[in-house]
Amino acid sequence: MAELANRLEIEDLKENLHEVQVLLHRHQLVESLVARQDSPRQELVEQLVQKQHLAELRAKLDHLHAADVAFILESLPLDDRLVVWDLVKADRDGEILLEVSDAVRESLIASMDTEELVAAAETLEADELADLAPDLPEDVIQDVIRSLPLEEREQLRAAMSYAEGSVGALMEFDMVTVREDVTLEAVTRYLRRLDELPDHTDQLFVIDRAHKLKGTLPLARLIVSDLEFEVGAVMVPQTFSLGPEDRAEDAAQAFERYDLVSAPVVDADDKLIGRLTVSAVVDYIRESSAEQALAEAGLAEEEDIFAPVWDSFRNRWSWLAVNLVTAFIASRVIGLFEGSIEKLVALAALMPIVAGIGGNSGNQTTTMIVRAIALGQLQTQYWRKLFIKELSVAILNGLVWGGLLGILAWMLYDSVPLGAVMTLAMMLNLVLAALVGVAIPYVRAKFGRDPAVGSSVLITACTDSGGFFIFLGLATLFLL
Amino acid sequence: MAELANRLEIEDLKENLHEVQVLLHRHQLVESLVARQDSPRQELVEQLVQKQHLAELRAKLDHLHAADVAFILESLPLDDRLVVWDLVKADRDGEILLEVSDAVRESLIASMDTEELVAAAETLEADELADLAPDLPEDVIQDVIRSLPLEEREQLRAAMSYAEGSVGALMEFDMVTVREDVTLEAVTRYLRRLDELPDHTDQLFVIDRAHKLKGTLPLARLIVSDLEFEVGAVMVPQTFSLGPEDRAEDAAQAFERYDLVSAPVVDADDKLIGRLTVSAVVDYIRESSAEQALAEAGLAEEEDIFAPVWDSFRNRWSWLAVNLVTAFIASRVIGLFEGSIEKLVALAALMPIVAGIGGNSGNQTTTMIVRAIALGQLQTQYWRKLFIKELSVAILNGLVWGGLLGILAWMLYDSVPLGAVMTLAMMLNLVLAALVGVAIPYVRAKFGRDPAVGSSVLITACTDSGGFFIFLGLATLFLL
Repeated sequence: MAELANRLEIEDLKENLHEVQVLLHRHQLVESLVARQDSPRQELVEQLVQKQHLAELRAKLDHLHAADVAFILESLPLDDRLVVWDLVKADRDGEILLEVSDAVRESLIASMDTEELVAAAETLEADELADLAPDLPEDVIQDVIRSLPLEEREQLRAAMSYAEGSVGALMEFDMVTVREDVTLEAVTRYLRRLDELPDHTDQLFVIDRAHKLKGTLPLARLIVSDLEFEVGAVMVPQTFSLGPEDRAEDAAQAFERYDLVSAPVVDADDKLIGRLTVSAVVDYIRESSAEQALAEAGLAEEEDIFAPVWDSFRNRWSWLAVNLVTAFIASRVIGLFEGSIEKLVALAALMPIVAGIGGNSGNQTTTMIVRAIALGQLQTQYWRKLFIKELSVAILNGLVWGGLLGILAWMLYDSVPLGAVMTLAMMLNLVLAALVGVAIPYVRAKFGRDPAVGSSVLITACTDSGGFFIFLGLATLFLL
Repeated sequence: MAELANRLEIEDLKENLHEVQVLLHRHQLVESLVARQDSPRQELVEQLVQKQHLAELRAKLDHLHAADVAFILESLPLDDRLVVWDLVKADRDGEILLEVSDAVRESLIASMDTEELVAAAETLEADELADLAPDLPEDVIQDVIRSLPLEEREQLRAAMSYAEGSVGALMEFDMVTVREDVTLEAVTRYLRRLDELPDHTDQLFVIDRAHKLKGTLPLARLIVSDLEFEVGAVMVPQTFSLGPEDRAEDAAQAFERYDLVSAPVVDADDKLIGRLTVSAVVDYIRESSAEQALAEAGLAEEEDIFAPVWDSFRNRWSWLAVNLVTAFIASRVIGLFEGSIEKLVALAALMPIVAGIGGNSGNQTTTMIVRAIALGQLQTQYWRKLFIKELSVAILNGLVWGGLLGILAWMLYDSVPLGAVMTLAMMLNLVLAALVGVAIPYVRAKFGRDPAVGSSVLITACTDSGGFFIFLGLATLFLL
């Protein structure tokens, strides 16, 4: 918080990036001048000016919060980014690496040697180190582990053992614990001896000799209570607690519902092993919603907007390949009916409409269901009810849009049977879309897979191939 | 927090919904038995049993946190939902209405009469009332406003005047303020006289006589400091503050970056008017990411999964209508080339592939850019750079996938020229997708519109119509 002392308003946050860019720009201007000079004296002057610009930039960076430096690094193209990264004080490298996005972190780590990385990692706490570890080279991790005191080494091992997306992977070890049988007076004296409380300390955790959680003592309660009382008399005896294996998503929902700032994490024997804070929860919520948005658009992971072309290609290729396969299958379905299209070429113009509307409608259904599943709102006994509802909506949509398009097709091609086939095909493809739109999240939820990933591709594949097959099949049966 | 006292773990949260369902089920079972009985004595017994079930259910609900009741209401079909809603104590109606989703709130409000609504609204604070107001009938709002004390009436008017998505719409008025020139001893005594501190009080706000913000006093600092000091000597003098007109999204980013629990909101004269807490920020983040996911799938607003068919239809129709128009345009583009398709029917089978891959690739580009814009990472001077990068990725994709599909088309239809046209068309449509994928968020950002809404529809419209035109046009030029 100390670093925020000079900060006033939101505009100032945006201003920082701008100032850094101005300084960088001046620096580059001088650099290009230097490159063009041949008089040695002139060059010397320019170099001095340049040094001054860099010193100014360094001073600016030193005064910024680690999160602001991270934001600036993310907003700069690779070459500028590395200039700024070199100017950041080495002892802040660790915390800044923690704050940047995965893609940008890779580009920064790639620019550092083993020694720098070890030095950066050693400034971090065990739980932070565990977050960074997957991106570090193996030898750096080994070096760092060897340098840790025993307790932290254990913590690091524990933190790294929990699966991604679990509470254990998000929790931290830094917290204040007190005993039940001491007075609030003693607690207050103890707290004063600590120089500072860990961030987000809204409550102290009350434990017994065996380190079992007995309750919590909110600071707000400590402050308003008589200091002669014992902790046991004032504490909240049974409180909300998490297990390290709990899903982070469930924990996030609990934080949201109960407006929590921190929650204790206990093991199977009720022993206190860490705590989860709201700031870790906020980061988790942001990241998981970003990941979902990226996955739905077919990006394998978060992409550095200034990534090299080849990196971008690799990040996107898998989804395009899947799309290619499904599009190819749909194309072969059309191929089956080439004879019909040759006889009635209007079919070629009308078939993409049937396929497109089906895909759109199926995605609406799935998005709504996936969201309800994520919030835990959809119970097993209601699937049938939901299914009937979606089928009804599909039939209503089929009547309205299918009817409308049937009339359009009739008017365009002056053929009532063609219009009727169009309407019937739309109706059937919308029903197919509803079936698939409910079935895909249902099956995925049954088998414990994330119901969101790839749903949209699967649905579009079914409604494209299905739509072409239904429309061209009906046309072949009734029109030719 | 008190209501959490009996709560232990995440499993318990899920258990609540199950228990309510079991009780509801028993109640319904008895109800159907009663309906079938004709012996009056038997009926009496059954009714007694039924009453007992409802009493049990009521007792269960009374012990649940408002957010848990809200969750249960959201997870029940309409008829069950209204049974449970009737059992909830009237004095909790207000807080529960605040917690449920908009769609479910509508269904609950529709079941209440004016008197009940006024009673529910009167239990809320001014900022909460402002959140509920848009869903309440006008006469209820007027009744409530009349019953408010002057200060709260002013607050309500202020809270309702801020635009949705601004800090003012999220802030609350409940907070603790102190003066600079009193001792910590006096502050502690003052706090003890308050029965309880407002939720999320991690810091007190230090103001002068004119109500201007001078700094903040974190509770953690108050606790560890010597009580003889004056507030002015211990407080954080200049702190992060928000304005009521600031964008909520910017505020959320600040909370995320600086790990805040609360922040003061001041007006143009630096006067303290309210505060923003992390729990409001968490709610905001969740809601806005949900809204975006729903909007992208073409749902106008959050949908109650048990909504009547007609409500669902209305929620989805506008997007389907837009989709229909774009699909129709694409269909007319194909119509232009019916002569070519008649001569070479393979074109009909291959054209959806060209269109589909283009749409997918364009959406990848836009999703990445929209995310960078939302995080403020994309500066004006880098658009050119980004544009060149996306064009390069598109050309690389065109070579790889276009080449692959060209070979497939050649092998399937035994025609080298057809394969060549396929490759060229893929390449050109991917370049078009990159152009459109960068241009749409660029133009929207320039004009200050949200770059996400409807992007996907626009891109698909361009790449569909464009893809058909490019492929069929090239085929007409070179193959016929």
